[in-house]
Amino acid sequence: MITSREQALALDRDDELAHLRDRFELPEGVVYLDGNSLGALPKSTASHLEQVVRREWGQGLIGSWNEAGWVHLPERVGDKIATLVGANPGELVVADSTSVNVYKALSAALTLALTERPARRRILSERHNFPTDLYIAESLARQHSCELVLAETPDQIPHLLAQGGVAVMMLTHVNYRTGRMHDMAALNAQARQAGVLTLWDLAHSAGAVPVDLNGDDADFAVGCGYKYLNGGPGAPAFVWAHRRHADRCTQPLSGWFGHAHPFTFTPAYEPASGSARFLCGTPAVLAMAALECGVDTVLAAGGMAVLRRKSLALTRLFIELVDTHCKEHRLKLVTPRDEAHRGSQVCLAHEDGAYPIMQALIAHGVVGDFRAPDILRFGFTPLYTRYVDVWDAVQELARVLDSGDWRQARFERKGAVT
Amino acid sequence: MITSREQALALDRDDELAHLRDRFELPEGVVYLDGNSLGALPKSTASHLEQVVRREWGQGLIGSWNEAGWVHLPERVGDKIATLVGANPGELVVADSTSVNVYKALSAALTLALTERPARRRILSERHNFPTDLYIAESLARQHSCELVLAETPDQIPHLLAQGGVAVMMLTHVNYRTGRMHDMAALNAQARQAGVLTLWDLAHSAGAVPVDLNGDDADFAVGCGYKYLNGGPGAPAFVWAHRRHADRCTQPLSGWFGHAHPFTFTPAYEPASGSARFLCGTPAVLAMAALECGVDTVLAAGGMAVLRRKSLALTRLFIELVDTHCKEHRLKLVTPRDEAHRGSQVCLAHEDGAYPIMQALIAHGVVGDFRAPDILRFGFTPLYTRYVDVWDAVQELARVLDSGDWRQARFERKGAVT
Repeated sequence: MITSREQALALDRDDELAHLRDRFELPEGVVYLDGNSLGALPKSTASHLEQVVRREWGQGLIGSWNEAGWVHLPERVGDKIATLVGANPGELVVADSTSVNVYKALSAALTLALTERPARRRILSERHNFPTDLYIAESLARQHSCELVLAETPDQIPHLLAQGGVAVMMLTHVNYRTGRMHDMAALNAQARQAGVLTLWDLAHSAGAVPVDLNGDDADFAVGCGYKYLNGGPGAPAFVWAHRRHADRCTQPLSGWFGHAHPFTFTPAYEPASGSARFLCGTPAVLAMAALECGVDTVLAAGGMAVLRRKSLALTRLFIELVDTHCKEHRLKLVTPRDEAHRGSQVCLAHEDGAYPIMQALIAHGVVGDFRAPDILRFGFTPLYTRYVDVWDAVQELARVLDSGDWRQARFERKGAVT
Repeated sequence: MITSREQALALDRDDELAHLRDRFELPEGVVYLDGNSLGALPKSTASHLEQVVRREWGQGLIGSWNEAGWVHLPERVGDKIATLVGANPGELVVADSTSVNVYKALSAALTLALTERPARRRILSERHNFPTDLYIAESLARQHSCELVLAETPDQIPHLLAQGGVAVMMLTHVNYRTGRMHDMAALNAQARQAGVLTLWDLAHSAGAVPVDLNGDDADFAVGCGYKYLNGGPGAPAFVWAHRRHADRCTQPLSGWFGHAHPFTFTPAYEPASGSARFLCGTPAVLAMAALECGVDTVLAAGGMAVLRRKSLALTRLFIELVDTHCKEHRLKLVTPRDEAHRGSQVCLAHEDGAYPIMQALIAHGVVGDFRAPDILRFGFTPLYTRYVDVWDAVQELARVLDSGDWRQARFERKGAVT
């Protein structure tokens, strides 16, 4: 472990990915450890968006649907994301929000499962899954007369699978509040063994950790564009179905862009072949253009393996430095020390101080976020987070804790977006 | 009726709305009559978007959800659109695509209707409604064990309402293919009389014709951001519920942004009060920023009444000039001559030539669009369409028809987006 800021700077000098930080616009004097909530702005985005707006929209007008290829954006950007999550070209499309895609993918999975094994009426997930996934599951459980069964802890999942009656297992690969990562291959194998279809939410995985949807034999997946894919606030999300399902599954948001022949304007719905049937309305061109710039920053790293190495080096260093420099304080490491179960974030619990401590950090230029009730959450984006950022963040955290300033501070609670 | 280009130019000089054209970037030498498919680019959009990207996202990062007010965009832009369609502040939100919003609103209306009158299992719409509305209705009819009943012509609607058994009547106010506008007040009154809930698709109405959702006693409505609201390709859409329903209706896309307390991250869903329950995922900030610029161009007109006057003057002139200058050709006016039933577009049918004739027009700088099988569609956006554009368009149409060039032309059919 390093013991000085100079050593952190030396790690940055030796970092083979250090040059990637130049692809981002980052505010001066800020240590940004919240790319797991909103990825930073790629330098290419503003000018690309301006070109799409001024040239493609302003000058090309309606003709740009064909001439600028807008009509193919969901597949084109989808193919790029596919390379990051172990999907094949044509299997993954960009569309709508993560929440809407959870609805589509869970509907598709449930409908398949209930057709083949109608007696199974359980959707298995986790109590601590991201709420929007649970809200959508609750809605679909009601719609399909199913029961939503929630594991209280990850180790209950195999038991609940083995108990039987499960139609679909819907999990978030990396937990938003703990940073814990599931073993996707093992859980898929257990699910397959139990005749259960799987749906993975990759919101905190895509662009952050290696994912191999086909290799690990997943059934369905969705993911988010505005976290590690750097697509911008509220960027479009993505949805994937394994090729064994894509041509036969159905989803209820049967909009015209998911039709086999959208421009024939026939009154009866006929789903497009493959994952294109997960498209619904007219593609959000401006938002997808921004997302494409974000995805390109991840592709520039040359593969998830090298990003994963740096991500683990960053989170490992952060944990070690917190262990050393903050050991007098009542911080509890929530994220697994076992690197096989760690995403690209580190979460620390503090019983009564998590909110004001994070506000004090933010006031001093170290931006992480707070998650109720007691979590300090720090995201590490290996594309632009430096070792010296880790050093500086922990020094500031130690200073805030040592000073006890946060006890006096009064911060108004405001919303924030994961 | 005018008989020369000079007279058209004189009409533009006298036009009280002529100055509004300066708010748009329009390509040189193009007569753009396709704003009903994709509205033109407002001059303010590129710079506003650049500021949102560079300053709010790039510098403000995650903090901009609160500090730049991103979190309130769905309601803030919604309140602006509300003034154009007779809705009150807080009743209308911007979210997702029109197709997704049709799903939400039709689900909400059906669920209410089926709770109160479970024996009624019909969704009433029109065979010639925009396909995405029908596809979604087909999906929800299946889900709720209902039957989708389609009027072949508008005058069948009152009879089908009177026949009974209808739960929800879902209509598009201005038809995308004919430009025919329904009498919303009369149909709502008939529906109310028959105990039927109404859902209006305002895709070709919002910003184009006066709409008074509350005054005309509608139940639900959705609409599109990228046509007459000039929000950009694939702009977010909107959804409205009458206040008598907004607090008690439910919709199945129960994402976290429609939760009563999204940032408490509770595992059980509790819908937000009012129309905010129609929100689902994280708002598409960049796309909503662009939409706001578009909506502002419509607000600059100072009310829908003055826009409607010019819209009717433009469509009236177009029809008169086509009657006069193209009378030798087999064009059939599809859009009603009765102005009370005319939206802001004019459609002409040509039995075998609609596609090549439109391609020939586009090649000569007059941009309308083709709708299968036989429709030449021309949209008139009073914010930026001039009388001289109408003159020039008809002259070019007459020239193409007189020359017969289109018979020789070979145009590859490509997709296009309504």
